[in-house]
Amino acid sequence: MTGNNIQLDTKGRLKHFLTIEGIDRSLFIEILDYAESFAAVGERAVKKVPLLRGKTIANLFFEPSTRTRTTFELAAKRLSADVLNLNILSSATKKGETLLDTLQTLEAMHCDMFIIRHPNSGAAHFIASKVAPHIRVINGGDGRHAHPTQALLDMFTIRKHKPDFTTLKVAIIGDVSHSRVARSEIHALSVLGVPEIRVIGPRTLIPNDIESLGAHPYYDMNDGLKDVDVVMMLRLQRERMRSALLPSEYEYFKRYGLNEEKLALAKPDAIVMHPGPINRGIEIDSKIADSERSVILQQVSHGIAVRMAVMAMTMGNRSGETQ
Amino acid sequence: MTGNNIQLDTKGRLKHFLTIEGIDRSLFIEILDYAESFAAVGERAVKKVPLLRGKTIANLFFEPSTRTRTTFELAAKRLSADVLNLNILSSATKKGETLLDTLQTLEAMHCDMFIIRHPNSGAAHFIASKVAPHIRVINGGDGRHAHPTQALLDMFTIRKHKPDFTTLKVAIIGDVSHSRVARSEIHALSVLGVPEIRVIGPRTLIPNDIESLGAHPYYDMNDGLKDVDVVMMLRLQRERMRSALLPSEYEYFKRYGLNEEKLALAKPDAIVMHPGPINRGIEIDSKIADSERSVILQQVSHGIAVRMAVMAMTMGNRSGETQ
Amino acid sequence: MTGNNIQLDTKGRLKHFLTIEGIDRSLFIEILDYAESFAAVGERAVKKVPLLRGKTIANLFFEPSTRTRTTFELAAKRLSADVLNLNILSSATKKGETLLDTLQTLEAMHCDMFIIRHPNSGAAHFIASKVAPHIRVINGGDGRHAHPTQALLDMFTIRKHKPDFTTLKVAIIGDVSHSRVARSEIHALSVLGVPEIRVIGPRTLIPNDIESLGAHPYYDMNDGLKDVDVVMMLRLQRERMRSALLPSEYEYFKRYGLNEEKLALAKPDAIVMHPGPINRGIEIDSKIADSERSVILQQVSHGIAVRMAVMAMTMGNRSGETQ
Repeated sequence: MTGNNIQLDTKGRLKHFLTIEGIDRSLFIEILDYAESFAAVGERAVKKVPLLRGKTIANLFFEPSTRTRTTFELAAKRLSADVLNLNILSSATKKGETLLDTLQTLEAMHCDMFIIRHPNSGAAHFIASKVAPHIRVINGGDGRHAHPTQALLDMFTIRKHKPDFTTLKVAIIGDVSHSRVARSEIHALSVLGVPEIRVIGPRTLIPNDIESLGAHPYYDMNDGLKDVDVVMMLRLQRERMRSALLPSEYEYFKRYGLNEEKLALAKPDAIVMHPGPINRGIEIDSKIADSERSVILQQVSHGIAVRMAVMAMTMGNRSGETQ
Repeated sequence: MTGNNIQLDTKGRLKHFLTIEGIDRSLFIEILDYAESFAAVGERAVKKVPLLRGKTIANLFFEPSTRTRTTFELAAKRLSADVLNLNILSSATKKGETLLDTLQTLEAMHCDMFIIRHPNSGAAHFIASKVAPHIRVINGGDGRHAHPTQALLDMFTIRKHKPDFTTLKVAIIGDVSHSRVARSEIHALSVLGVPEIRVIGPRTLIPNDIESLGAHPYYDMNDGLKDVDVVMMLRLQRERMRSALLPSEYEYFKRYGLNEEKLALAKPDAIVMHPGPINRGIEIDSKIADSERSVILQQVSHGIAVRMAVMAMTMGNRSGETQ
Repeated sequence: MTGNNIQLDTKGRLKHFLTIEGIDRSLFIEILDYAESFAAVGERAVKKVPLLRGKTIANLFFEPSTRTRTTFELAAKRLSADVLNLNILSSATKKGETLLDTLQTLEAMHCDMFIIRHPNSGAAHFIASKVAPHIRVINGGDGRHAHPTQALLDMFTIRKHKPDFTTLKVAIIGDVSHSRVARSEIHALSVLGVPEIRVIGPRTLIPNDIESLGAHPYYDMNDGLKDVDVVMMLRLQRERMRSALLPSEYEYFKRYGLNEEKLALAKPDAIVMHPGPINRGIEIDSKIADSERSVILQQVSHGIAVRMAVMAMTMGNRSGETQ
């Protein structure tokens, strides 16, 4: 996809944040390092910095989401921006307005940034290719394509526990085929130099071309989890359980759910990750979710820090404007 | 309507903003001039002024609206006010509380201003006549009666391109009968001294008494658009297309939609306006909507500036209070 | 219920605010006195104090409510906190996430305080017993159990008119059985030393064990209102009118609605209270609701002041943190 470069300006700096593809290692590390400074903000008594004061950030959610929308909203507020929550499903598009007219209207209202969540793959790219030069676009998840801030927060979390990516074995478990999270994770792990990326799931849920992305497929947890440093569970879309692609919930948990017995195959200090919300007893046993090896809640906290970083970086790279 | 004067205080200053009727030319110009200072705020890196800091503004929308609600919300936030969005359809009135009890409750919560959008003509006047003396009321559109901030932003936009109102020919095209926008525009153009105000539409959609408002009816675009300086399209309520009042969408566009051929009848430097959201290919051809002659997106920007002006002016005229 | 003490820290200071039970007289008075300072804030031109700047307060409403949610939101904003409104009915719990996972996720987002409204009695206690040590929980109404901020604002309002609680006769009228408001009022009046607490209603709506709470039952308004200083009407849940527990609305108003004739039995300077929203002509005659004896709108104003006080107090008592 050649269009990925639209997320960089002519000096190679971050302009939009649409996908991990096209972000090189040094820029990726720069974002992670910048996010460190915001992780500290969440711990302070006054969790606010004035970086984006007087900016207007529009949350454009074409798909329902509480968690992602909330973390973007909190990230924006902690940067002192004004936030506009637009549930597009129930707004002007119903009145027959086209998407581009809606976007141009928001630009005319002097919005500075759009956070996009959309069921169609490529939606955030399309929007970024159409907006006025001063507008920044951040992809909050588009179809099966990408969820780049999720990959960012997960790499941030891994780095806290395993600082050297170049020695890691990482397994991603679940419905890889339908997961924008999995795609973005694989790209991110590759960029950061992880030598062994595994995906584990039923054959029906692992894409045929997965090796072209640099990941190795496993269809059995006992093989795939062996000696890994990081276990990344995917969320199971329970809606899909009813389709023919998946066995029953019970059967799924037995084969691909994470329990103590299976986790024992990983390295003794392996960490367990999940993008949330978790389905206890389906993807993951409660004992593990609540154990010290689980870093699931750290992921949530880091989600706000990395989103603050991406918002502040893209906005800071607007030519000719002083903050 | 003698009740209009309730929008002025005893010194003739703006207290509420309910309708263009009863606003004289000098006050109208004063509002437009004041709005100029806010238009610049939208262009700044920090789009915020502290004029209404610590004030509480309640958006009381008894009718769905994304665009108008959003611009009022942004205007309030850029004035540093706190905003309360109340979707009245789903709130206390369902529990059997009367409208006046809801308003008194909001007053007791120390709200300072109500923005009212209501399906009944006269609702904003009624509310303004009942609130406590320190409360300000702004009409965000009431039934078929008025949408005065829309007229204000349109006059602001016209003045940017055609500073001398006393030489203009202006045409308003569409379903004039059901349009609160049209009524407010006609009043505003009259107040500002526009010598020729035309309305164009099917006979079924032009009120019989339109001449008493100072406008001349045309039933044919070819006659009505001739030599005009400003073309104001109205939004077509597509819901009404299904009723007997209107021909088919195709037929409507053929007769009253704006295309290049018809626009060629207007003055060469005529501007094209629309309150949005636009129905491309129904009221207006996409080529024109996206052309340099269209000032539709400027209208959106100016909408925030004039709403900031009206909010700040009415609030500033509270006796005995320092900002 | 031994769990009540979880709302106090080891030094006996307010940590959560869950119920009136377990709050002693001196702490209760301390809260009321602190609320006095916030009552003045509502009257100022700039209705904001920076006490909770940079704090994040999450409104977790598992039950619909406009009035209570709005007053908590305004209280939080006037303390300069950031507010997150989560309608839990439509959010992550639908995706199969457990309540505790939702709470832990919000903690991981560095929320500082949860305002809980829940249909199950005990929900706020349960949540307070599970949250991390730095999180504060305020009960915005749980099932039939408690609505302690309502009791607080009502005591604040009574004190404005009748400063000496130890000489008062107070009557609470309506569906006492199903009312969390009534339970909290009775506890509050007891704590403050009110010597005579009466409850009035149909036998079907007065709990059998009411005397164990320190209140005396009356089934006839003419007996119960005699010589009282304070008349507290409860809101009638009209949904219940259709059940067998209650006579018709007409019949109810005739027997237990407050009109001038019945109010004449109370002391000449008796005040009339109602938690709102009121059903005119059902619980209360319009003449009385709008009379000088009604303090209903004062209750609304005081509701914001006492909620600001409780928020600021609980947050201020976080060990090792400077504001």
